[in-house]
Amino acid sequence: MTPRPTTAPQPVSPCDFVVLGGTGDLAMRKLLPSLYLRDRAGQLTDDTRVVALSRAGLDDQGFRAKVRGELARFVDSSAHEERSVDRFLERLHHISLDFDEPADWPPVVELLGCDPERIRVFYLACAPSLFGPVSHRLHEQGLVSEHSRVVLEKPLGTDLASAEAIHDAVGAVFEERQIFRIDHYLGKESVQNLLVTRFANVFLEPIWNAHWIDHVQITVAESLGVAGRGEYYDGSGALRDMVQNHLLQLLCLVAMEPPTYVNREDVRDEKLKVLRALRPITGADVTALTVAGQYAAGLVDGAAGASYVEEVGLPESRTETFAAIKAHVDNWRWAGVPFYLRTGKRMDRRCSEIVVTFKNVPHPMFPGSEGTEEPNRLVIRLQPDEGMRLHLTAKEPGPGGIRLRPVSLDLNYAQAFQTSSPDAYERLLMDVVRGNPTLFMRRDEVEAAWEWTEPILQAWTDPRHHPRPYPAGTSGPSAATTLIERDGRSWHESSL
Amino acid sequence: MTPRPTTAPQPVSPCDFVVLGGTGDLAMRKLLPSLYLRDRAGQLTDDTRVVALSRAGLDDQGFRAKVRGELARFVDSSAHEERSVDRFLERLHHISLDFDEPADWPPVVELLGCDPERIRVFYLACAPSLFGPVSHRLHEQGLVSEHSRVVLEKPLGTDLASAEAIHDAVGAVFEERQIFRIDHYLGKESVQNLLVTRFANVFLEPIWNAHWIDHVQITVAESLGVAGRGEYYDGSGALRDMVQNHLLQLLCLVAMEPPTYVNREDVRDEKLKVLRALRPITGADVTALTVAGQYAAGLVDGAAGASYVEEVGLPESRTETFAAIKAHVDNWRWAGVPFYLRTGKRMDRRCSEIVVTFKNVPHPMFPGSEGTEEPNRLVIRLQPDEGMRLHLTAKEPGPGGIRLRPVSLDLNYAQAFQTSSPDAYERLLMDVVRGNPTLFMRRDEVEAAWEWTEPILQAWTDPRHHPRPYPAGTSGPSAATTLIERDGRSWHESSL
Repeated sequence: MTPRPTTAPQPVSPCDFVVLGGTGDLAMRKLLPSLYLRDRAGQLTDDTRVVALSRAGLDDQGFRAKVRGELARFVDSSAHEERSVDRFLERLHHISLDFDEPADWPPVVELLGCDPERIRVFYLACAPSLFGPVSHRLHEQGLVSEHSRVVLEKPLGTDLASAEAIHDAVGAVFEERQIFRIDHYLGKESVQNLLVTRFANVFLEPIWNAHWIDHVQITVAESLGVAGRGEYYDGSGALRDMVQNHLLQLLCLVAMEPPTYVNREDVRDEKLKVLRALRPITGADVTALTVAGQYAAGLVDGAAGASYVEEVGLPESRTETFAAIKAHVDNWRWAGVPFYLRTGKRMDRRCSEIVVTFKNVPHPMFPGSEGTEEPNRLVIRLQPDEGMRLHLTAKEPGPGGIRLRPVSLDLNYAQAFQTSSPDAYERLLMDVVRGNPTLFMRRDEVEAAWEWTEPILQAWTDPRHHPRPYPAGTSGPSAATTLIERDGRSWHESSL
Repeated sequence: MTPRPTTAPQPVSPCDFVVLGGTGDLAMRKLLPSLYLRDRAGQLTDDTRVVALSRAGLDDQGFRAKVRGELARFVDSSAHEERSVDRFLERLHHISLDFDEPADWPPVVELLGCDPERIRVFYLACAPSLFGPVSHRLHEQGLVSEHSRVVLEKPLGTDLASAEAIHDAVGAVFEERQIFRIDHYLGKESVQNLLVTRFANVFLEPIWNAHWIDHVQITVAESLGVAGRGEYYDGSGALRDMVQNHLLQLLCLVAMEPPTYVNREDVRDEKLKVLRALRPITGADVTALTVAGQYAAGLVDGAAGASYVEEVGLPESRTETFAAIKAHVDNWRWAGVPFYLRTGKRMDRRCSEIVVTFKNVPHPMFPGSEGTEEPNRLVIRLQPDEGMRLHLTAKEPGPGGIRLRPVSLDLNYAQAFQTSSPDAYERLLMDVVRGNPTLFMRRDEVEAAWEWTEPILQAWTDPRHHPRPYPAGTSGPSAATTLIERDGRSWHESSL
């Protein structure tokens, strides 16, 4: 590929980032490092500020000292630069407060001022149970103008009703266009690359349908267990924690029709159409089309790995740490094409990818190639490294006869452009300031996803249902293998 | 791309290569170096021999000494290896003779023996006027069995009638299946790669038609003039020398329908269908759709370059050294898609390529991208280096907003397979021994190509017709630029 220079990122409008839960794990690991990197890239104006709110009892200096230490930990050393860090720290403020206590808010109001034209981003890095109350408080303090935006992190409810309650409460203060429900999978370079590859080229779209595609696999495999998050996780499980949001969002981007424009509401309209076209899985279909699993003790990196119940410290649990689902999108484009989804914790490796497997060529015309051709595949990789690869068939170079061999083509353009991909949070935070909602979930999407997920959730909640055990450090329960292999297909090797 | 090992080439059957004109330019520059390289690669059996026939008056030792010197000149130093050369020279024989003199032939018969099972390849590296008489002589001497093959080089006639005469004369001795009309463009790795890319993958074929393809360009540009070949060339011209054979053959491979199998007659049947679907260019269309040119004096590599007439040493000439044609394939697949052909001598660079330009995406959906997208292009490069490149649109990596940028993907797999491509002659010679005619022109193809070319040829022979002058070292006459630009298109930049 020919290397080409990239264009410099355009600065975003002046704004105040207000991080509620500003000393927490998400703020330190993701939000502040991302803002630092965007600052270093020249994307923040001089008067842009970052205001952390928490109960940590820190003043600005104390907070800056803490962040200095955390940036050294969480920013890649190649991008960690004393002068840039100093400049970034100058932007930071911390106000200690109890969200519930109105008397704690005046310093916040004073610091932020009341310019209704100024963009304020309220990042709610706190428990979802606080999304409503905090929104109410912000409104009450006069901090919400039409230029404000609010960012919500998952989990957005535990079922349809609780999601609706959150959306109602936040929606009482913020208009839908001001609400940014973040799913960092949508901020990944390779996911956006998929959109461009599909819709800015003529190569994929004509074959992106049931005529040419055999099936789609979406895998989000984690090697970690639930250590540290056990209490939250045991009330959630893989279906709520991963499938309802991340995996269904990825499915939408693969399956959606061409939107009219990629900005505006069009992408979300198209994703919603996909969610609504998902064939409901209810009754006996839950048994036939889904597999729940829970990791038992096993070998993890050569050492004994604890079981899920040991990790969460419970005598027993019916919470699934693994889910596999055979889904269908019932529309003209995808009729008969299965979408195999799976996600799990304590798998044998960390790997997230979308694999689109095409049908074989309709007729093998190269002598000796009959049955040996591998079908074309497009692999969109999200973790641990991002990339896009096209697996195709080439002629083995050489004289006399045409021998076919599989090759893979790298569609990861970072190398071509001599640049590294920014983290998903960097991109998404800039989109929030820009007010660009394309890569965020709209209320109706989240609720449609809950609607599809609920019957499976309910079936799995049945006391007679038990997740199937799989040894920690493996590729999940054997029933997940059966789920795909009885269709004459198999999980893509490199996924797990 | 993932490097993969290649499989070793399979040896071909024992045979005798008999090169008539065995001390000539073609033998020394191409045939013997190619046979040497195939020998070195292990593809020739121990008892395979190379027998040169010429009037050079050499014995075996003299011929071997001559070839030793020529191999040092014409084989790449990385492949030139003393031990391999010694072994190859052992295979060589030379018999001095006058083709016309029956008394000169007994030593040939004695050397070749009369085993009717042995494969004999008669390579007629001599003037086409001798193809008939030599064939007759070979037959008369009892050297032709059903395991014999004959290889013919261009020019195969100067018009339809003379081509038919040659084919009749050779056909009186050899069956069509024994006749291998060589067009070394068809032996090129990238040309075969095109077949595999089209027909062993699902990506191209669904868009390989008038719905998705805007136009096709085929350029064969040479930087050399006609020095040394002036006498032959002045009786021929670019249309006969290049268009009727090489360019039309390349057009066929681009335009043909999927054959049933790539071996057997199927590929040639499909090429023939394309030639017969070429819209005839006659009458006023010759002026509208074709441009003939002839180089005048100009700057070649910074020095004064002679004009064509100076080079051939004639007071004047109406022979064209450049031809550009806008052709159409009148069938369902290609309706409305122009094929722009051009070839010339003394152009500003040596470059042969096929450029398939796709239509733009039907609707630009990325904000800011309207009108800036470059359409996808597939470039199949034949000279000076071989390769295949897909030009597409990618997302420029980076946060915030989707910026589209052109990138090019290398589909040249030599690197992936860690091997270098063999020369076209190497491949084609092995195919002759194998009796595989796929990459050779069949009689009906050659004649169909003449049939289409003749009306243009006749119009250009009209005394009132004069080729347009273009300065040596340039991209041809301006009329060739007009030919494509009046359609709102332009010649692909990298071609010339």
